[in-house]
Amino acid sequence: MFMLPDLVGYLAATLTTVSFLPQAIMTVKTRDTSSLSLGMYSMFTLGVLLWLIYGIYLSNLAIIAANAVTFLLATLILSFKIYNMLRK
Amino acid sequence: MFMLPDLVGYLAATLTTVSFLPQAIMTVKTRDTSSLSLGMYSMFTLGVLLWLIYGIYLSNLAIIAANAVTFLLATLILSFKIYNMLRK
Repeated sequence: MFMLPDLVGYLAATLTTVSFLPQAIMTVKTRDTSSLSLGMYSMFTLGVLLWLIYGIYLSNLAIIAANAVTFLLATLILSFKIYNMLRK
Repeated sequence: MFMLPDLVGYLAATLTTVSFLPQAIMTVKTRDTSSLSLGMYSMFTLGVLLWLIYGIYLSNLAIIAANAVTFLLATLILSFKIYNMLRK
């Protein structure tokens, strides 16, 4: 039987992962990254990469899957931010 | 002796937590939330709240501390986004 706490954990992981999808879509559509912080997305993307490495080390599929998705989305947003800054 | 994988995990948690600080500072300074996604910050803030509840349930101080900080920062950014949208 699915334990409630595990459900809360899986829901938390899903929300914090999927949440970057609307930001990625908005950034790709608008190309506007003016109010996005380069510091945040650089640190966050590196942090998610480390989570991914940590998940691979533990062979924990949930950590790997969640952070692989977030890493792709965060890298996409970060690259738009860097591209816009270089173009200025 | 500190195990390398644990170090990677703690570094990942620190980076993904602290990364919201530069975004919060930028948002408070510029008041500009135009390219921030409401969808992202609503889902992300809820997800972090659930992580916090999960951590309290497990009495895991690392999960509680990291997500308490992120929750405060994400809520601050989300409130600026909502405030700006209501003011339009």
